[in-house]
Amino acid sequence: MTEVDFCFSPAQVHLFDIKDKIVVVIDVLRATSTINTALDSGIKKVIPVSSIEEGLIYKEKGFKVGAERNGKKYDGFDLGNSPFEYMEGLKGETVVLTTSNGTRAIKLAQDAHKVVTGSFLNLTALCDWLKTQPNDVLLLCSGWKDRFSIEDTLLAGAIIEELNEDIMINSDAAFAAHHLYMSYQNDLMTVIKSSSHYQRLANNGVMKDIEFCLSKDKQTAIPIWKEDGMVVLEN
Amino acid sequence: MTEVDFCFSPAQVHLFDIKDKIVVVIDVLRATSTINTALDSGIKKVIPVSSIEEGLIYKEKGFKVGAERNGKKYDGFDLGNSPFEYMEGLKGETVVLTTSNGTRAIKLAQDAHKVVTGSFLNLTALCDWLKTQPNDVLLLCSGWKDRFSIEDTLLAGAIIEELNEDIMINSDAAFAAHHLYMSYQNDLMTVIKSSSHYQRLANNGVMKDIEFCLSKDKQTAIPIWKEDGMVVLEN
Repeated sequence: MTEVDFCFSPAQVHLFDIKDKIVVVIDVLRATSTINTALDSGIKKVIPVSSIEEGLIYKEKGFKVGAERNGKKYDGFDLGNSPFEYMEGLKGETVVLTTSNGTRAIKLAQDAHKVVTGSFLNLTALCDWLKTQPNDVLLLCSGWKDRFSIEDTLLAGAIIEELNEDIMINSDAAFAAHHLYMSYQNDLMTVIKSSSHYQRLANNGVMKDIEFCLSKDKQTAIPIWKEDGMVVLEN
Repeated sequence: MTEVDFCFSPAQVHLFDIKDKIVVVIDVLRATSTINTALDSGIKKVIPVSSIEEGLIYKEKGFKVGAERNGKKYDGFDLGNSPFEYMEGLKGETVVLTTSNGTRAIKLAQDAHKVVTGSFLNLTALCDWLKTQPNDVLLLCSGWKDRFSIEDTLLAGAIIEELNEDIMINSDAAFAAHHLYMSYQNDLMTVIKSSSHYQRLANNGVMKDIEFCLSKDKQTAIPIWKEDGMVVLEN
């Protein structure tokens, strides 16, 4: 890896040539934090799907399906998008997940050399692995309905900082993400509290989720795309 | 005006409802700095066109036409995209301009309540006027081929800072732009020098343009869309 670039919205991913790149999909609040937690807790595979309709098809086939829209669990599904729902009682199972932004971003990255998901929870483990890879990296933020999202940008900045000694930052977007992270690295919660997504989630009573999703290095699993879903990367 | 939002790429403008907004189009290097300079220097109107082909049609009709692609003057046209080319000898004339990014962004904003262009050159004059307006504001960066551009983001942040006492910042993108500007406001050139666009322009020998485009409050004209082009806003 010699180059890391940063794409702040799934709607911009077509501007990047991802064929030979490792794409790190980021949805801090909460899809990629939840996928990470699920796999780190022993769930065998997480199949991300884009639509509620696809989720329902899997549900009818007997899968456990998590679904979230507008920050809330979608009626009629087994699980929502809180990492705490995926910690216990699902060991060895395959679960299906559809969320507002994150699962869609994973699907949009399918043409990449490899697709992994990032979170503060597995920050060091992920970066240690990226450092061993020959391919360039694109950090792809899920955003909120295609808009810029500060919590995803801060994680992108954190990844850039971790990789800093080994890479060239040669895009304005990567420079900006790195600067934002360096400014707020010791006070992520303060800046997240001023964010639009915080307001949205706090209204839904998921303060505990936010605190958890901002905590670094609680996990070591690296979710990687294989066939039809995210599984733990085996070194 | 109660709200200011920030859109970092013309490709994202469809995400914003601009019908009742004043859109400030930003292309610091160099289209909106050049349009500002042209009008401030007595040029009567600047007609922005999206394509080289449209520019040629105007040229055949006898208009003076400026054209830039990839940071360079396009062969066969009268003028390029340097503000210095529009300072003298064109008083009272209507000129046509097509650039890689900025003129396209102006065209994409046509559904807005009002379209004005911003630059560091007219920062205070523009903001003083915005403060008198009842409509919300969208700062629309031209970027580079739809990607994030640091110099445009810094100007967006500078405008947000100027308006700060009168507005609510309630988007993550506006928050980020404001933070970046506050970090680098006394040292714009250093951060611009690390930008991708600087490298592109410096290779074309336009260092003088860059210094000029980063200087604040040299001009008082506010270019506003009227009928088919940008004219000086009459108070």
